[in-house]
Amino acid sequence: MMGSAMSFPLRDNGHEVRLVGTHLDREIIQSIKAEGLHPTLKRKLPEGIDCFQIEHLEQAISGADTVVGGVSSFGVEWFAANVLPVIPEGIPLLSVTKGMQNESDGSLISYPRLYCQLLPRASEMCLNAVGGPCTSYELADRDQTEICFCGKDIRKLRQLKNIFETTYYHISLSEDVEGVECAVAMKNAYALGVTLAVGLSERRNGIGGRLNYNSQAALFAQGLKEMRNLLKLVGGRDENILWGAGDLYVTVFGGRTRLIGTLLGRGMSFKDAMSELSGITLESVVIAGRTADAVRTLIKRGRASEADYPLLLHIDDIIRHDAEVDIPWSKFETEIVL
Amino acid sequence: MMGSAMSFPLRDNGHEVRLVGTHLDREIIQSIKAEGLHPTLKRKLPEGIDCFQIEHLEQAISGADTVVGGVSSFGVEWFAANVLPVIPEGIPLLSVTKGMQNESDGSLISYPRLYCQLLPRASEMCLNAVGGPCTSYELADRDQTEICFCGKDIRKLRQLKNIFETTYYHISLSEDVEGVECAVAMKNAYALGVTLAVGLSERRNGIGGRLNYNSQAALFAQGLKEMRNLLKLVGGRDENILWGAGDLYVTVFGGRTRLIGTLLGRGMSFKDAMSELSGITLESVVIAGRTADAVRTLIKRGRASEADYPLLLHIDDIIRHDAEVDIPWSKFETEIVL
Repeated sequence: MMGSAMSFPLRDNGHEVRLVGTHLDREIIQSIKAEGLHPTLKRKLPEGIDCFQIEHLEQAISGADTVVGGVSSFGVEWFAANVLPVIPEGIPLLSVTKGMQNESDGSLISYPRLYCQLLPRASEMCLNAVGGPCTSYELADRDQTEICFCGKDIRKLRQLKNIFETTYYHISLSEDVEGVECAVAMKNAYALGVTLAVGLSERRNGIGGRLNYNSQAALFAQGLKEMRNLLKLVGGRDENILWGAGDLYVTVFGGRTRLIGTLLGRGMSFKDAMSELSGITLESVVIAGRTADAVRTLIKRGRASEADYPLLLHIDDIIRHDAEVDIPWSKFETEIVL
Repeated sequence: MMGSAMSFPLRDNGHEVRLVGTHLDREIIQSIKAEGLHPTLKRKLPEGIDCFQIEHLEQAISGADTVVGGVSSFGVEWFAANVLPVIPEGIPLLSVTKGMQNESDGSLISYPRLYCQLLPRASEMCLNAVGGPCTSYELADRDQTEICFCGKDIRKLRQLKNIFETTYYHISLSEDVEGVECAVAMKNAYALGVTLAVGLSERRNGIGGRLNYNSQAALFAQGLKEMRNLLKLVGGRDENILWGAGDLYVTVFGGRTRLIGTLLGRGMSFKDAMSELSGITLESVVIAGRTADAVRTLIKRGRASEADYPLLLHIDDIIRHDAEVDIPWSKFETEIVL
């Protein structure tokens, strides 16, 4: 969906766009070919896009100036094995996938760095990524959006900005790839955390009843605090927390992450909440689990403190250990002595 | 309203509470005396509160362990002249008023510091303040709330925490008074900024139509960025941005600041928006103006950069110079080179 939505700024800037679906996207590609409609994005894509099924990937990439990668977190290994090798030397990749991978020593690494581990040639490639608050629906509606392109080379980033920037798609640039990617990866996990308060309000006031914002705000601030601690762990620059904050804000307001946080907050078990969502595994759940695994490993190694991640660890206990929702409010308290 | 709401944790902890209204609160005090109802908070206050009109201030304060100050930004001079002198030596003040005062050289100072300027004796007093996301309605409903008490002496803060903390009112402590107060003062100005996007959505999609969250999130993140710059200006610790973020989140969701931001975003002139609000001057408007004045003075003095405050300066142009809403999106863009 986000990959397809990127066709709006590209076509508005007069670029040729070739859209390739994975093996899971056959019907989407057929629908766009037949009537221009992206069935899950629920929008007509711009005129003049060439569509390709996965078998014609090489043909689609041939002659392209830039490749946009639009798989979800679940597709990164597939992407590294099947798409990266086909990208010609010197052609930049811009990936919209948000997430981090945890390693056995507790390190959290960005997907661009993961690609370099999965495919030796990738470290020679120009790998870039997009972070910041952007839903695909709103990008497709040309609503005002402010995001960040990150990559190792500011000159390449400026070229990419030149290709994508429009009057509604505003682009900051950063060479701090791990920092930007860490900040925006975590929003999925913590958006689940913030929306627990929505479900807790419903448990108290009835569904459709009054929502409580003090508690949402407290969880929002605690989420940012823990995201800031994670940023330190990966060596990212602190100001990236602003991308995380924007991304957390937009994620709290919609979609399935809000739904599952709300259901859990109401008191539903994780198993039952998942069946309400037709068993679809959410990126938020996976990212929360991975990050909790990383943090638990680092705690064991004496490299992180349990006191710095009470919300993350509680989210993980809820979704993987059937814990009841019981927000550890007093663990959020801090004391600053000058 | 917030001062009265503080009676909930106090009474729940078994403390004696004496509630004093200013000369503007006569009817509120009468209503609480007569039927226990706070007419603007729209809640019955806890049982067992003694109510006093302003003439009996000294009687009310006599023998108190702690004084809670609950005036708005417009009442701080009155408070310094009429209440501070009556507080006996050694009795701590906890003020819920959020805001900053700008000085002629462009400095922004907290209200505790302003009190010390207005009343020489105040610098000998134990002045403390509350920051962080808390609406009075939700505190009165005993909803989960996490805030920060700030003051110069951590031991006094710990005593105050002991008095106020309940199972729903969670208290962090900080000796960084200017930092906490600056972070939470600015939320009023920037909440107006974020909700411009609500009005812009309504202008585009109709009132009651679809809201755009990419743009709200972009303004939220830009607001935090500028609040972080202001924090640096006042010498506050950077982590206070978390209190600002929580406070901004809760302020975006309700009340008159959201309403005026929305009306302005729809395209209404500031004058017309103010008449919709029956001409009541909002703290958000005053704080935005004061902060913009401070920043413009510091820019003239070469101590601040215009590029660091594009959203604040635009808000000020809208509310004081009849500028049309035209969010300076491209001025929000940044470039980070490692």
